[in-house]
Amino acid sequence: MRTEQLNPLSKARLSVVGLGPGDDALMTDQVRDALANATDAFGYFPYVERLSGLEHLRLHASDNREELERARAALDCASEGRQVLMLSSGDPGVFAMASAVFEVLDLASAEERERWAGVDVQVLPGITAMLAAAARLGAPLGHDFCAINLSDNLKPAAVIERRVRLAVQADFAMAFYNPSSASRPEGFARVLRVLKEECEPGRLICFARNVSRADERLQVHALEAVDASMADMRTLVIVGSSTTRRVGRHVYTPRSYGMQTRG
Amino acid sequence: MRTEQLNPLSKARLSVVGLGPGDDALMTDQVRDALANATDAFGYFPYVERLSGLEHLRLHASDNREELERARAALDCASEGRQVLMLSSGDPGVFAMASAVFEVLDLASAEERERWAGVDVQVLPGITAMLAAAARLGAPLGHDFCAINLSDNLKPAAVIERRVRLAVQADFAMAFYNPSSASRPEGFARVLRVLKEECEPGRLICFARNVSRADERLQVHALEAVDASMADMRTLVIVGSSTTRRVGRHVYTPRSYGMQTRG
Repeated sequence: MRTEQLNPLSKARLSVVGLGPGDDALMTDQVRDALANATDAFGYFPYVERLSGLEHLRLHASDNREELERARAALDCASEGRQVLMLSSGDPGVFAMASAVFEVLDLASAEERERWAGVDVQVLPGITAMLAAAARLGAPLGHDFCAINLSDNLKPAAVIERRVRLAVQADFAMAFYNPSSASRPEGFARVLRVLKEECEPGRLICFARNVSRADERLQVHALEAVDASMADMRTLVIVGSSTTRRVGRHVYTPRSYGMQTRG
Repeated sequence: MRTEQLNPLSKARLSVVGLGPGDDALMTDQVRDALANATDAFGYFPYVERLSGLEHLRLHASDNREELERARAALDCASEGRQVLMLSSGDPGVFAMASAVFEVLDLASAEERERWAGVDVQVLPGITAMLAAAARLGAPLGHDFCAINLSDNLKPAAVIERRVRLAVQADFAMAFYNPSSASRPEGFARVLRVLKEECEPGRLICFARNVSRADERLQVHALEAVDASMADMRTLVIVGSSTTRRVGRHVYTPRSYGMQTRG
């Protein structure tokens, strides 16, 4: 029993928080306050490591293939009356832990449901990687756009391919999360073949690696000059729409589309 | 000449900043620092009003149909050596001022190009309305999604309709910005007809009005119960994908798609 350390009036809470893409200056005050007032933090090893200076927190780090187990453990901890954080990089609602927590609540056994009934679950947003990357590049997502997770751990490769093809037809700019990893080297290569079939050779493709960190690297290429090795698991890829353009060192997508409104 | 008031070493800068959706607790430290160190702020009336407590700033408010003129005025001001902010609500790169600034730079006359050559333009991201709304609702954007501006000021209604149809076929969740306004009451009604043709009647539609403000209102309905009057210009609409579900008071989209991975 750990509850004796706590104010008995404090409500059991699990806050799923977004730490932003890396630089602490991109964190919100709301998340900063949640970090200051929590007792426990659960998350993938490198995200927990970002909190190593906060000595009032009990840190619970786990591997990134264990999202559902991590969510259950965090709900159990909160149900003991503790103030618990579930950490995500970027925004928790974009290819991150918020869905995993609600999935666990949705699939809960009768016994779990009873145990977790008193836990207030809240989600605190953060700056997601595509918006941090877009800001550094200029405004490539300034018109309609979509976000696609290229990892095929959780969906078939054929779904990804079809979705990218339809997104090109809709002329969305696109942000690709998790383009490639050691265990899935083929992910981005496959999508790149689709893009080369569907788009003109001059289409702008942006690579933003480790955005907002000391070793940030930004690259912009025409599609014809792109090869699959340009993206790894720490890269956010932004594919321009047919109207995306360069101006000086920046890339932007005009606000207007298919109308004579420029000038 | 205003430059005599300034440190002659300070570089001319235009920072396009995102104030977040309304609650100042959702602002980043990076933006807070930019507010503290600037001399001038340009923006749409209600965004400039959010800064009325900051007495060191010269405030330049304008109407929301004057984006390109506002961008030119801000670049002129920065070229005089001042530290200038261009304000956006939410994130400046999502249907906001960043694209307008780059558009003006792209279309600049030779004379303007020379005048603005020394201005360093940077974009500082913020929490965009769809991510704030998604966090309050649960995790409706937890799988692949798209963002569409329903305003037909800058694109033909037929483009919007086609894009929504393709987005349904791709089975994206969708966030709609600017669904409706007094001058365009038909925007959301038209898209709603497309959704009713393309989606099952139980598809979840979320309405988030004035997210993070004192008068925030969240509603979730099945598509068959939705009518166009539910969205106004202060509403962010999120349309679930075919897999979006309710759990308790929350709405979420599972991370996995078309695979047997649940449980």
